[in-house]
Amino acid sequence: MNKISEEMIALGSTRSVIRELFEFGKVRAAQVGAENVFDFSIGNPSVPPPAIVTETALDLLQNSDPVALHGYTSAQGDASVRAAIAGDLTARFGMAYSADELYLTVGAAAALCCAFKALTCPGDEFVVLAPYFPEYKVFIESVGAKMTVVPAQPADFQIDFDALDRVIGPNTKGVVVNSPNNPSGVVYSPETCKKLADLLRAKSAQFGHTVWLISDEPYREIVYGNTQVSWLPSLYRDTLVCYSYSKSLSLPGERLGYVLVPSASPDAERLYAAVAGAGRALGYVCAPSLFQRIAAKCVGCTADLTVYAKNRALLLEAFAAYGYPCVAPEGAFYLFPRTLEEDDLAFCERAKEFDLLLVPGSGFGCPGHMRISYCVPTERILRSLPAFEKLAKRYH
Amino acid sequence: MNKISEEMIALGSTRSVIRELFEFGKVRAAQVGAENVFDFSIGNPSVPPPAIVTETALDLLQNSDPVALHGYTSAQGDASVRAAIAGDLTARFGMAYSADELYLTVGAAAALCCAFKALTCPGDEFVVLAPYFPEYKVFIESVGAKMTVVPAQPADFQIDFDALDRVIGPNTKGVVVNSPNNPSGVVYSPETCKKLADLLRAKSAQFGHTVWLISDEPYREIVYGNTQVSWLPSLYRDTLVCYSYSKSLSLPGERLGYVLVPSASPDAERLYAAVAGAGRALGYVCAPSLFQRIAAKCVGCTADLTVYAKNRALLLEAFAAYGYPCVAPEGAFYLFPRTLEEDDLAFCERAKEFDLLLVPGSGFGCPGHMRISYCVPTERILRSLPAFEKLAKRYH
Repeated sequence: MNKISEEMIALGSTRSVIRELFEFGKVRAAQVGAENVFDFSIGNPSVPPPAIVTETALDLLQNSDPVALHGYTSAQGDASVRAAIAGDLTARFGMAYSADELYLTVGAAAALCCAFKALTCPGDEFVVLAPYFPEYKVFIESVGAKMTVVPAQPADFQIDFDALDRVIGPNTKGVVVNSPNNPSGVVYSPETCKKLADLLRAKSAQFGHTVWLISDEPYREIVYGNTQVSWLPSLYRDTLVCYSYSKSLSLPGERLGYVLVPSASPDAERLYAAVAGAGRALGYVCAPSLFQRIAAKCVGCTADLTVYAKNRALLLEAFAAYGYPCVAPEGAFYLFPRTLEEDDLAFCERAKEFDLLLVPGSGFGCPGHMRISYCVPTERILRSLPAFEKLAKRYH
Repeated sequence: MNKISEEMIALGSTRSVIRELFEFGKVRAAQVGAENVFDFSIGNPSVPPPAIVTETALDLLQNSDPVALHGYTSAQGDASVRAAIAGDLTARFGMAYSADELYLTVGAAAALCCAFKALTCPGDEFVVLAPYFPEYKVFIESVGAKMTVVPAQPADFQIDFDALDRVIGPNTKGVVVNSPNNPSGVVYSPETCKKLADLLRAKSAQFGHTVWLISDEPYREIVYGNTQVSWLPSLYRDTLVCYSYSKSLSLPGERLGYVLVPSASPDAERLYAAVAGAGRALGYVCAPSLFQRIAAKCVGCTADLTVYAKNRALLLEAFAAYGYPCVAPEGAFYLFPRTLEEDDLAFCERAKEFDLLLVPGSGFGCPGHMRISYCVPTERILRSLPAFEKLAKRYH
């Protein structure tokens, strides 16, 4: 047996909980019919892209020079695409951005990897706030940094500032936030964002170096009611925004996103170069060219999110009735109720007896909870409600 | 000034020679007209994708479920896409491949990065053969391995086996080959490939561990006359094939490729897992989904390569007439003549006086040569010939 990277073997062989649920679901579907298996495990948008995406794709394919359309763009992305996105950000967030502050990436995962690799020096740590997207750990450790976790504040899933204050130390290179949040769905309040900015300024002063804010924002446009998502660069200068079109335009498989390196930061020029260097070192030649052009034509558009709003309302109402304690979150397409026993893994195993596929909170650094992805057909929600009710009756 | 990764800053700020030439070309185009600037520096396909690519794209966009079409595929790529590609490889190369041996990637650069990261343990080295694609060094060093170079054999750009024999040592994890080659255009002869396989077997036995062969094959289908490109996995069991559709389908910006991990290798199962783990660690969630589907429908197709054949013949004939010593290579879309003075950087500077933009061989580990990318309109070749002639007269 030859030596190859055991770390990579481990990363590639670990079957995720979600993958296990998927396999279980396939077996059950064969037994009881797919319509009777209630899979709430996958965060894949269930609504199509807005019509303008397909229309633009057809137009570009039919009416533009195919050599240019499918050719390499510059490594940071096509200049006119970056200008269109910068213009949209400028219009929406009241701060002037230029094309040169944007680095287009192969999705948000690539954006995060480039950001972490650009920032990391030996000994650096990044702080994440539970509940958090589990791949953060993979990305952070892959560039040689260490991940430190701030425990969740389950009453409202805003930030536990006492805990965050204790965790940020001299080796903290940055803090990663994700609002609207996967898995909780919670949007940080303006007050939370302001306190976060104040704390990071104080910590930067205390340690004599910038503590960066890495804002992972794939769900930025997926909010309910009149919710406003704070624009963090307006509150904290040294913010890197990592974005993806996966959720807003329902294009998760097409892999398009960006890193915004606001020029307000005194380190912006070097950091932008480092992000580009990281993209090169990680093998990202450029973001997919056709979808770069599509994104430029679809700035400010989103898929039709009304089905998510409907699903969310149905589930929140049902959970209140059946006795699942649940923060009513204002964004993304996840709910994160408390499980009805402390052991969330045992609870989610029990749920499978009712053909409910739910993801335990432990994987998100927040035991005692379960993630419910409601980016599913409303029909599935409606059919699943009796199962949720029966499951609750086991406990109450 | 905050500490961020100086390595990444350096990688992101280095302006490549090609980029410098591009900027020079823009300035000259404004002065003398774009048609009088002869840019031979860029390896971007100049022919459109075959019609089937656009037809398939239009059909998929108009007639398939957009949620599935643009959704995440599994990390290793859609199963039916992998099956289609495996079927094509099986039909063409006389060895049976299955979908499970293929891991789809975001282009060949990603394929190489995943392969290097999967294989690398501390202390490992990879051998590359000059002239070589300069990004190999970036990718190999980025995963913590060391790159060792075998000097070129300029008489024919086949392999200098004495030099290769000396360079492969106990720390050599693999040897990287690229045939048809960028920048020389040369295709390794069947005899070269057989000798390479024999040497790698002997070295593996000598050092008690497999010396892997990493075959970077984006130009596999771009060959002239009756040239056959040897299928290396049929000659050497422990071969990883890294492929891209950038050149064969003229889709460089769309970023689609694969790693083939042939199951014949006793380490195949672990290595496939490690490649998948590397993809995860590097932030590659899946290869772009629309173009995965397109590739499946276009297996075995290529762009119309006749213009390359024409350009190649024109240049080879002219170079023979003007006295540029040049191996007549059988693949890719590059020529790699000797420069008319030893110092290739000085020569290429001199060429700029004639508005000829040529890339010095030094960057490819092979001084005293120049790379000419002839994936350009034939018109540009024809208009450039007097400039090549005048340049030669300076020296003869």
